Amino acid sequence: MRVVKSVKEVRDAVKEWKAQGLSVGFVPTMGYLHEGHESLIKKAVKDNDRVVVSIFVNPMQFGPTEDLDKYPRDLERDSKLCENAGANLIFHPEKEEMYFEDFSSYVDINGLSDELCGKSRPIHFRGVCTVVTKLFNIVNPDRAYFGEKDAQQLAIIRRFVRDLNIDIEIIGCPIIREEDGLAKSSRNTYLSKEERQAALILSQSLNLAKDAINSGERNSSVVIDIISNSIKKEPLAKIDYIEVVDSLSMKPVKTIEKSVLVAIAVYIGKTRLIDNFTFNI
Amino acid sequence: MRVVKSVKEVRDAVKEWKAQGLSVGFVPTMGYLHEGHESLIKKAVKDNDRVVVSIFVNPMQFGPTEDLDKYPRDLERDSKLCENAGANLIFHPEKEEMYFEDFSSYVDINGLSDELCGKSRPIHFRGVCTVVTKLFNIVNPDRAYFGEKDAQQLAIIRRFVRDLNIDIEIIGCPIIREEDGLAKSSRNTYLSKEERQAALILSQSLNLAKDAINSGERNSSVVIDIISNSIKKEPLAKIDYIEVVDSLSMKPVKTIEKSVLVAIAVYIGKTRLIDNFTFNI
Repeated sequence: MRVVKSVKEVRDAVKEWKAQGLSVGFVPTMGYLHEGHESLIKKAVKDNDRVVVSIFVNPMQFGPTEDLDKYPRDLERDSKLCENAGANLIFHPEKEEMYFEDFSSYVDINGLSDELCGKSRPIHFRGVCTVVTKLFNIVNPDRAYFGEKDAQQLAIIRRFVRDLNIDIEIIGCPIIREEDGLAKSSRNTYLSKEERQAALILSQSLNLAKDAINSGERNSSVVIDIISNSIKKEPLAKIDYIEVVDSLSMKPVKTIEKSVLVAIAVYIGKTRLIDNFTFNI
Repeated sequence: MRVVKSVKEVRDAVKEWKAQGLSVGFVPTMGYLHEGHESLIKKAVKDNDRVVVSIFVNPMQFGPTEDLDKYPRDLERDSKLCENAGANLIFHPEKEEMYFEDFSSYVDINGLSDELCGKSRPIHFRGVCTVVTKLFNIVNPDRAYFGEKDAQQLAIIRRFVRDLNIDIEIIGCPIIREEDGLAKSSRNTYLSKEERQAALILSQSLNLAKDAINSGERNSSVVIDIISNSIKKEPLAKIDYIEVVDSLSMKPVKTIEKSVLVAIAVYIGKTRLIDNFTFNI
């Protein structure tokens, strides 16, 4: 497995593979990889002849008060995980390789990005759409893999890939959890021991909601109240949002009549965590 | 030469050519082709093994009061011109093939699109960037050809192609003019006989400015006054803008110290015409 830093090196490698008729899978990440990423890489390895993983903490998707500088990094550990999972190439560019000083273009989306995380992170999805478009153009894969933990991100990526006629298959992969239920996230590393315990409230509250919907509850307000009441019992938790939205449009629904995403964002201390489940009708 | 209407047909044709190792040139147009487009197609034919021309009047780049509905169309004549110029494929999609009802993504650019035509056509360049990105993703050419008459458009396309790592070479081609100097444009067809004569004021005024700069004038205000005073002598003409801008950033310059674009937009009756020249230092 090679680790390269320049756009040219990635392009040359992929062009050589494609000239040999090999298929290419792609897993874009911000590094500090965990079993969630590992599951994406393994799926990509299974589906494709060659797999590229990008590791780039994209400044454009962080707000001015967010955790860009302290976002955890560990290239050595990441490289081992990628190699063991079967990846062929890591693209690990510096910021300057991705953004010229007079960089001025962007990709964005109306509607889907206003709800959920878009409310508390207003420029976040523009940064995600833009960097994912750049990475797609650099890597030129046949398939790209994203976790369902970032459900809104996945819906947005599916939409702009469709709208802009990007010829790449987008594959969503299930949330990977710790044994006790906490969704795997690079940001879990921010949690103190006490906060780590408190963070269980996210998956536990979602499970209560899932049980209620499975038992026939169709009123979104009731579902939201179940989650809200549960989270409020945890003193270290502060709710950012709890929403029941249409899985495609990401618009809130009052009654659960078709597939919905139940998504939450909760601060545990200073760390913002997200979790969700999809209920398919 | 084939005329196709679906994204799939274009992709299949280009994939087949690429599998044979053939290079592909692309000329995006809104149809009603004239010698300006013809020069782009001929240049593309010279540079590439195969050439795709798109003909699509893109609703997203027209403002609500602009000439979308009356924009001239003549597919039969256009097809003949393309075939004679050596094109291999025309992509002529319906609006519905390009924009789903819930279309919600866009590509845009900060800075470059605020000046010149961006002032009087505020949503224009977002529409251009978005449709050109779509067409690039559909056609997947090696090279794409644009006229220097739309100088700001060309600068913007070069910028987002660079910023978003689009792997296509952008080639600008010189303005083609009528014998009397009027820049070729599909919109010239809107002009009455009297207006057609009055429209000469654009190229004539630019020539006066060019003479002044060639004789050493470096003060942009003086250059602008020369053009303005000349245009004001034509009663049918109404100035939209006259600007001297940096050729790369499209920002107005006070003193001509490096390469500049001298660009004008002028209403002749109800028809808005543009023209320009670049002065290289």
